[in-house]
Amino acid sequence: MKEEVLSCIMTRRSVREFQDRSIPPEMINDVLEAARWAPSGHNNQPWSVIIVRSKKKIDVLAELSGCRDTVRGANVLLVVFLDGELSYERTKDVQSCGAFCYTALLATHAIGLGGVWVGRILSNSDKVSETLKAPPSWELMAVLCIGWPVHEDREKERRPLDDFCHLETSGQSWNL
Amino acid sequence: MKEEVLSCIMTRRSVREFQDRSIPPEMINDVLEAARWAPSGHNNQPWSVIIVRSKKKIDVLAELSGCRDTVRGANVLLVVFLDGELSYERTKDVQSCGAFCYTALLATHAIGLGGVWVGRILSNSDKVSETLKAPPSWELMAVLCIGWPVHEDREKERRPLDDFCHLETSGQSWNL
Repeated sequence: MKEEVLSCIMTRRSVREFQDRSIPPEMINDVLEAARWAPSGHNNQPWSVIIVRSKKKIDVLAELSGCRDTVRGANVLLVVFLDGELSYERTKDVQSCGAFCYTALLATHAIGLGGVWVGRILSNSDKVSETLKAPPSWELMAVLCIGWPVHEDREKERRPLDDFCHLETSGQSWNL
Repeated sequence: MKEEVLSCIMTRRSVREFQDRSIPPEMINDVLEAARWAPSGHNNQPWSVIIVRSKKKIDVLAELSGCRDTVRGANVLLVVFLDGELSYERTKDVQSCGAFCYTALLATHAIGLGGVWVGRILSNSDKVSETLKAPPSWELMAVLCIGWPVHEDREKERRPLDDFCHLETSGQSWNL
């Protein structure tokens, strides 16, 4: 299991260009089935998700997203909310929603699809909630765009470990 | 890749009891190497981590954690902070830290170790920061306890999809 999982984690990249090709509902279900295993404090699972497949709705959300072309090109949107009625401590619940979104994106990559996490749309949360008839207790966390990836090299950098890992106290680098 | 990754996601459980057995630094490194691939807004990677292996420090943190026995039993703690100097939007950065913690726990499970995410310790953030000499700009996000798991069945429930997934608008269930 080890190599496949670490490789999946390390090869996942944001995919912003998609093929004009439909995703079978079974694959969307695989993504959701994985995402629900994200951890949460007290196992409160404070998330709600609206799956958007309607082209008309996708276009409306694209205009609100701050990255129109990416959203318009997606075949499915997963719109993730923090459900205030299930919340117990906001910081931890926001972290859980982050873990949920990441799990969905990792599963997306594992099954051969591509996805990207759109955060800029949070500045239009009210309009998104209105468009999707979300209850007032739901706070928008993210929109995940999912589709069949256009194949291309996606280079991305990350900070090396000795830049952010410290041994025992801050300031003492972790060097293996 | 698909089956191994989905299986790793779905079989991961919080491990709260550990063997009295040391973890080689190479395995800790594997966990950190995976975690650094977590996504973040603008790729800002707003995390800092202190790796705690000193038994004395682990015991001090255990007293602050709200779950003493679990923390005392861990062989390594990963203390995860949001680095305010790298932050651009708190909600998104907290989500990224959540994704970072989850990636670390998933990698932990993938390589045969066990781990648990401790959130209750946030109520003692100031004392944790003092103990680890964390700079004032670092905000404690979580402590991850890692060790060799004591083998046992770990049942855990999650909400079924039709409980939190909605199609096109809220209130309309996702049923495959």
